[in-house]
Amino acid sequence: MNRNNLSLLTDFYELTMAGGYLESGIAHETAYFDLFFRRVPDGGGFAIFAGLAQVIEYLEGLRFDEEDISFLREKGGFSEAFLDYLADFEFRCDVWAPPEGTPIFPGEPVVTVRGPLLQAQYIETMLLLLVNHQSLIATKANRIVRAAAGRSVMEFGTRRAHGSAAAVLGARAAYIGGCIGTSCTVCERDYGIPALGTMAHSWVQCFPSEYEAFSAYARLYPDNCTLLVDTYSVLKSGVPNAIRVFREQQPAQMAIRIDSGDATYLSKHARAMLDEAGFQQCKIVLSNSLDEWLIRDILLQGAQIDSFGVGERLITAAADPVFGGVYKMAGVEKDGVIVPKMKISENVEKITNPGFKRLYRLFDKSTGRMVADVITLAHEPAPAGDDYVIFDPSFTWKRKRLSGFTAREVHVPIFEGGRCVYTPPPVAAVRDYCLAQIGTLWEETLRFENPQTYYVDLSQELWELRTRIIEEHQT
Amino acid sequence: MNRNNLSLLTDFYELTMAGGYLESGIAHETAYFDLFFRRVPDGGGFAIFAGLAQVIEYLEGLRFDEEDISFLREKGGFSEAFLDYLADFEFRCDVWAPPEGTPIFPGEPVVTVRGPLLQAQYIETMLLLLVNHQSLIATKANRIVRAAAGRSVMEFGTRRAHGSAAAVLGARAAYIGGCIGTSCTVCERDYGIPALGTMAHSWVQCFPSEYEAFSAYARLYPDNCTLLVDTYSVLKSGVPNAIRVFREQQPAQMAIRIDSGDATYLSKHARAMLDEAGFQQCKIVLSNSLDEWLIRDILLQGAQIDSFGVGERLITAAADPVFGGVYKMAGVEKDGVIVPKMKISENVEKITNPGFKRLYRLFDKSTGRMVADVITLAHEPAPAGDDYVIFDPSFTWKRKRLSGFTAREVHVPIFEGGRCVYTPPPVAAVRDYCLAQIGTLWEETLRFENPQTYYVDLSQELWELRTRIIEEHQT
Repeated sequence: MNRNNLSLLTDFYELTMAGGYLESGIAHETAYFDLFFRRVPDGGGFAIFAGLAQVIEYLEGLRFDEEDISFLREKGGFSEAFLDYLADFEFRCDVWAPPEGTPIFPGEPVVTVRGPLLQAQYIETMLLLLVNHQSLIATKANRIVRAAAGRSVMEFGTRRAHGSAAAVLGARAAYIGGCIGTSCTVCERDYGIPALGTMAHSWVQCFPSEYEAFSAYARLYPDNCTLLVDTYSVLKSGVPNAIRVFREQQPAQMAIRIDSGDATYLSKHARAMLDEAGFQQCKIVLSNSLDEWLIRDILLQGAQIDSFGVGERLITAAADPVFGGVYKMAGVEKDGVIVPKMKISENVEKITNPGFKRLYRLFDKSTGRMVADVITLAHEPAPAGDDYVIFDPSFTWKRKRLSGFTAREVHVPIFEGGRCVYTPPPVAAVRDYCLAQIGTLWEETLRFENPQTYYVDLSQELWELRTRIIEEHQT
Repeated sequence: MNRNNLSLLTDFYELTMAGGYLESGIAHETAYFDLFFRRVPDGGGFAIFAGLAQVIEYLEGLRFDEEDISFLREKGGFSEAFLDYLADFEFRCDVWAPPEGTPIFPGEPVVTVRGPLLQAQYIETMLLLLVNHQSLIATKANRIVRAAAGRSVMEFGTRRAHGSAAAVLGARAAYIGGCIGTSCTVCERDYGIPALGTMAHSWVQCFPSEYEAFSAYARLYPDNCTLLVDTYSVLKSGVPNAIRVFREQQPAQMAIRIDSGDATYLSKHARAMLDEAGFQQCKIVLSNSLDEWLIRDILLQGAQIDSFGVGERLITAAADPVFGGVYKMAGVEKDGVIVPKMKISENVEKITNPGFKRLYRLFDKSTGRMVADVITLAHEPAPAGDDYVIFDPSFTWKRKRLSGFTAREVHVPIFEGGRCVYTPPPVAAVRDYCLAQIGTLWEETLRFENPQTYYVDLSQELWELRTRIIEEHQT
């Protein structure tokens, strides 16, 4: 079994459709698909786009080996012509996407794919899987990082992640969202994300006494001396033993970690004890089923915490663990002309935007802040001028006239004719870019609850196309 | 980068502790660890143990290659003696666990590990990761399967899974929990789990009309002809077009899938239309953000559904996505004698059970049903006789006298001295075993809300040991 070959990690219907497109003679028609999402998890005001580096890896490796072909032949239902097509598969699509770390909003085309219908359809499952997962975790991590209000947040959820990829790529996404590191060692080896951690309760239990456990640790790891103080009693034994060892050994880096009990009460008293002992430089780390709400709460209560280790509720995005990205057909070329396609739903929120589109982000010239995103048809000029009109796609009486902005295209070309034309930056650069971009959002969009809805509007021409198709459908 | 090498997929503190144990001269002492959990997700009455096959794979592959060693050397803080130990690493622990698919309960030792302290500690992270993830999904899937009350349930969540391992192994766990198949194709190739699916809305959109889309599909896949009927209007066009195509082509297998709208209303009317057309054998498949509560609800309302495709809420266990397995030290041998270890917490629920233990499951002789699980010390004889007394570990006045039972050990040996002595059965056999075992639970334990708490009690001797250690700690 070749577990690295993820080409068949796909919904089976992608294969029945692919085979069917080939048999029906439409496999090579040029199709347009958009990946977009409809709702920000946890009711937030924006999401963070992540997972692109893994999408690139997947698309560059997309081929079908002998084992795949025999498996499909044996499963049955597929023609030899289709199996031959797969055996010779060569990716030939164009792909556009924002750089990882870019804030994204409901309803806008996040990833756009153009290419042979069969191929553009086939990649749906993995595109969604990779983008949904990492965008979910990056978005969640950033909420937690913002709740920590300048204190550092470490991703500590490996043991509760949904499988190994969730642990590793979840930690990657958490770092993009602003965590300073992870407990997951392999992430440092493979992605250069700092791996952190010192001891579990079992370390303390292995020694005849807590003092001896701390003492042995400080001797071995003076540069990384975070002592876990809650095995017996934080204030009665943990902190006093830590102080004793810090006095005796003066480790270069000193911290204590509290993993249970009342964080506010214990951290205030621990801080006072450490300060009184002259260890103002000793940091206090808190871990224990934290999330953005708990962190905000204990900080409001005056807890004395320098950094947070956040586990299960970050790595699973526990409060809202689904990022609902979807991938919908927007058009098919017939005789070189794009025939726009739309899913017309009873539910107005579920109506998609037709055609080959571009996405622009408008920044206010004076403040540098994001003003609105505008979706246009691809052939339209970029938004410009001092009287640019945009429309809300659901509530069309909501029009807005904009001036004093600069427009930037959100998408960059990722694949051209199947060839990758984009080099993903190192993950530390993605993280910097992400945090800088979030800095251009208004505070009203950053709120945890009931954020201001950021404008994602349509150009006049796209709005007219959409209206015309809906009207044609209704007659 | 070797992404298959997961030996460094571990919390960094496992490495600092491992290095520290070696430097402190206690790395080779024999230690005992138990993996257990404290709470069933979703408030359920039992969980399903899953992930063992992957634990075996991980432990059999556990070694550190040149790249790992250089990485750790460069990261710093580790002695050359420790790096040499890792370079020559050979797994030597004993491991006991239940067969996959076994119902498990809070507080009991699910996996027990005995071996050199350094090794038994090191494997913590991956053991937890693998068992937590698959047990979570198997448990959730079984709830959904039970809600479907005999109708089939298919796992359809690949695109919303937390990464590729969550998609593949989540589908495996869902199958163990009773799903009949998955949308995830690679699961059939690698695990023999049936992969299912036919078409998305884009298939229908690609053809000039819904009728032509259905017709083309039925011609190509007569043995697997499930038509998606909600692209335009289920009752006005989807079902009539499906009936027309079924009449014309008489495919061997015929079904319709409803993916949006009011499931109860639409399925009742679709059923009537299909029946009237003479297609009583046509199945109705429902998919659309389902879970156990929604399925129960629509069935109570009389929806006419033959099978369910369940996606995001199954593959992420959305309502409660954390399985809180922990791994705690239970003892260390000193001069050949086991010194029991316990974490003594203010919170009585968090107190662990000390020593090297065995887990027995008692079945009522007359009904064959599970009566209670009993944890004993390893040297004790198996529970037997007609007057066997067990104790609730938290509420010690709760004693129970048992008679008329047979006792079966829940654990089987998995590794002996680092050598695997267990062959995981094929996943279909695991699924059969799982469903048979669940059949021995009382209905009161199967309830979704407020189930009867199954007895997990202690032998007299274990109870006395535990009490003695708590008393010693308090003085």
